[in-house]
Amino acid sequence: MRQASTVLVFATSGPALLEITGEVAEWLTGTGVGDGLLTLLCRHTSASLLITENASGAVRGDMLRWLDRMAPRDGRYAHDDEGADDMPAHLRSALTGVHLAIPVGGGRMQLGTWQGIFLAEHRDAPHRREVAAHVIGA
Amino acid sequence: MRQASTVLVFATSGPALLEITGEVAEWLTGTGVGDGLLTLLCRHTSASLLITENASGAVRGDMLRWLDRMAPRDGRYAHDDEGADDMPAHLRSALTGVHLAIPVGGGRMQLGTWQGIFLAEHRDAPHRREVAAHVIGA
Amino acid sequence: MRQASTVLVFATSGPALLEITGEVAEWLTGTGVGDGLLTLLCRHTSASLLITENASGAVRGDMLRWLDRMAPRDGRYAHDDEGADDMPAHLRSALTGVHLAIPVGGGRMQLGTWQGIFLAEHRDAPHRREVAAHVIGA
Repeated sequence: MRQASTVLVFATSGPALLEITGEVAEWLTGTGVGDGLLTLLCRHTSASLLITENASGAVRGDMLRWLDRMAPRDGRYAHDDEGADDMPAHLRSALTGVHLAIPVGGGRMQLGTWQGIFLAEHRDAPHRREVAAHVIGA
Repeated sequence: MRQASTVLVFATSGPALLEITGEVAEWLTGTGVGDGLLTLLCRHTSASLLITENASGAVRGDMLRWLDRMAPRDGRYAHDDEGADDMPAHLRSALTGVHLAIPVGGGRMQLGTWQGIFLAEHRDAPHRREVAAHVIGA
Repeated sequence: MRQASTVLVFATSGPALLEITGEVAEWLTGTGVGDGLLTLLCRHTSASLLITENASGAVRGDMLRWLDRMAPRDGRYAHDDEGADDMPAHLRSALTGVHLAIPVGGGRMQLGTWQGIFLAEHRDAPHRREVAAHVIGA
């Protein structure tokens, strides 16, 4: 039994769902762990992680518009000193969550056919986002 | 230290919260792992996993109606080619999440007394749903 | 490779986000695990766990008011025999989730600078809340 960890870094430029499945899979392959458990943690409070459909760009657009409605910018928040996009970003981050746990088998994440891993950026300005990755197994 | 994994399969027939605590516990017992960590991943983007109250059917009904309000069918989504229930299903799946991580002690999941594990089906048509399960421990 | 587990107990007195990062870190340090994976499970269906901004009390107030709007008390729920705050508490618990998975490196949780771990209490009455903690690593 052994483990490996890293921090994956992604550049974002405004609200979007950025698919990171490939980057995660590439790192996982490099660790040589065949069977085990993969964990991802987005190290921010205004970006998050999400598993959703990987085939349709329309799904991602609908998802972003839905997040806009669920945590709107005009929410009259007490916390507004970092801009109108900041508090909604914290709420959207809490709504979708910042961590994922994914079983690994045969060297591959046991995702379904249509599942992709997405880094959700909720702020307007460009950011450098860190995702801590950990795998334990054999 | 050792690990075990499987894929549990469940048949669904329309929107519902299907309790799967028993099936998961039965598999866990069979692995012989006494202390460790259990992870579950729903391998779909229109179904999800949820821990909620296991005693009251009324809670499950309220939960489903709440999900209906949070991600309504009449949401004027761009992604609608798979039916009016499809995009809301993706949103409800993102809202509740597709993975669970549960510590194991004395051969049992360390759930609270009133906690049950539920597979949430968000599509109208019958589906065959896969839940990847992994346990690591001793 | 080894593991450790415990149950952390917190007293709450009404809806609030109670930061528990320090208590979790203190327990983690005591386990002596340097690199690994930490898992937390809130053993209740009307309280939950959340990672959000640790610096601003205004963020926590906005988060609580947002949860009030997302799962309001006047929701005309079928399940109301335990009080008007009960069913909304179940919904808020499902919305934010009851478990967290956090990679550990150098004996520390790999949280971002601004991330704190919060126990979210959703009921009005004082409660004693249990958080099961597990770490595996080396």
